[in-house]
Amino acid sequence: MKSVRVFAPATVANVGCGYDVLGLAVYRPGDEILARLTGNGKVSLDLVEGDEGRLPADPEKNTVSSVVIRYLEFIGSKQGVGISLYKKMPFGSGLGSSAASAVGGLVAVNELLGNPLSRRELLPFAMEGERLACGNAHADNVAPALLGGFVLIRSYDPLDVISLPVPDGLCCALVYPHIEIPTMAARQIIRQNIPMTDAIRQWGNVGALVSGLYSGDPELIGRSLEDVIVEPVRKMLIPGFDRLRDIASVNGALGFGISGSGPTVFALCGNKNTAGAVADALVDELAGNKVDATSWVSEINGRGAVLL
Amino acid sequence: MKSVRVFAPATVANVGCGYDVLGLAVYRPGDEILARLTGNGKVSLDLVEGDEGRLPADPEKNTVSSVVIRYLEFIGSKQGVGISLYKKMPFGSGLGSSAASAVGGLVAVNELLGNPLSRRELLPFAMEGERLACGNAHADNVAPALLGGFVLIRSYDPLDVISLPVPDGLCCALVYPHIEIPTMAARQIIRQNIPMTDAIRQWGNVGALVSGLYSGDPELIGRSLEDVIVEPVRKMLIPGFDRLRDIASVNGALGFGISGSGPTVFALCGNKNTAGAVADALVDELAGNKVDATSWVSEINGRGAVLL
Repeated sequence: MKSVRVFAPATVANVGCGYDVLGLAVYRPGDEILARLTGNGKVSLDLVEGDEGRLPADPEKNTVSSVVIRYLEFIGSKQGVGISLYKKMPFGSGLGSSAASAVGGLVAVNELLGNPLSRRELLPFAMEGERLACGNAHADNVAPALLGGFVLIRSYDPLDVISLPVPDGLCCALVYPHIEIPTMAARQIIRQNIPMTDAIRQWGNVGALVSGLYSGDPELIGRSLEDVIVEPVRKMLIPGFDRLRDIASVNGALGFGISGSGPTVFALCGNKNTAGAVADALVDELAGNKVDATSWVSEINGRGAVLL
Repeated sequence: MKSVRVFAPATVANVGCGYDVLGLAVYRPGDEILARLTGNGKVSLDLVEGDEGRLPADPEKNTVSSVVIRYLEFIGSKQGVGISLYKKMPFGSGLGSSAASAVGGLVAVNELLGNPLSRRELLPFAMEGERLACGNAHADNVAPALLGGFVLIRSYDPLDVISLPVPDGLCCALVYPHIEIPTMAARQIIRQNIPMTDAIRQWGNVGALVSGLYSGDPELIGRSLEDVIVEPVRKMLIPGFDRLRDIASVNGALGFGISGSGPTVFALCGNKNTAGAVADALVDELAGNKVDATSWVSEINGRGAVLL
């Protein structure tokens, strides 16, 4: 029976100033998804590994399979599909874990069926996975996981997704402190109304970050990552956040922020060596405060999910 | 006695989604400023023409001269300067009239003194002129009037101004309905707090507009001009605004909005012919509603203020 195996990458949503509109993909960590045609007309979850038993076993409730069910309904396929999910990244960590699983499932099954839909056409299905996982069909993880690179969601209605260029060498250090912040809780502490003056500063930064990506100006990218809206609230959930920011800066990071809803933090750096030094220094700082942490260093992933 | 004459252009601030952070310069209309060295150690207003007697005659209170006084203090010059201001554009119109006068005065006197400051260094002085004129030292008119082109103000503190590229052929139609909206009143109706969902949509548009300018994508520029924050409030001051928007669209405009605090409206168009047709159709519509209007069509002015 035909099968395909897909790697779907972790993603950094928000990326500083771009709350709900910006995201980027990295090369590691990520999930692996194996999908096979079964011919029995059903979508089954053959295996879920690496989740410590915490993800739903019901195919309708697990992100990786629920998005495939909707996808098969949409294209009118009567195929049966068996899915194995190898979680190779933490979840509830701000790394786009649910997005990686949904994207991996969709890319794998779409491949099995001869790619009737384009990557962009898969996007709405992956977004429904986000609605299932966190109550909100946001695109800032699934879009970069599908399309790769640095992605801007101009609009959700109608959906308008723009791939941005990434300067050569731009690297991301990711540090995941082993504390848990449920995405839904992290979203709930966000204010419903914000001061106009803060909003103006934020959209100035978003525009400048896009400018920095196009013009390849690392310093402009760095100073544009400033987030005056969400970070001041969410950082309270990450002990020692301001100190971590200082350490990233001292070690040469261009900019620093919370990855998605946290607790993972990210630092954009001009090259891999700097990103490695920043990651190590952040892990050391957390260890000194008796918080275990895992780190990854990766260039920006321009491809998104790939067949293995 | 040495003298110089400068043309300083009108500017479109906000440019749709970019409230307080985006502005662009056009080639017409604009003000002309004549400055001469007098040797008497004072800044005098020799002549103000075209203002129907409405601008202050006191050099400390007129924008064009007050910024020059601050500039001369800063560079420690004991020179005397006589300034003639030829207003060739309406004021209280949303075309950056006070910005043009301030920029023209500064560029002229800086030239007279051998350009001790760069254009960017003149910016804070021009911004002080805006504070005098409308109570707020905003930069989204003075920056494009000084630097030309499409300008993004990432941050006011510290001041961080970015020149954006402009696609070839991009044209601006300006239509000034002869109704008056004082800038200060137009600012006062803006809300102090805004819904997060609107803010997210706005910064998605700002990022996308910058992307469209770099990638030279006219359609993306057009749909990114959407302003969900300020236009819904300010358009109430412009009778028939929604109908004007429809007419601009039907006649081929990429996007349409309020220039600065209005009542002038602008339409970005892919070429000069389209911009001309849009301007004519808007003027006709206003005439049908018994509102006189003046229109201009101009490519984006990449130079800013120039010596004549």
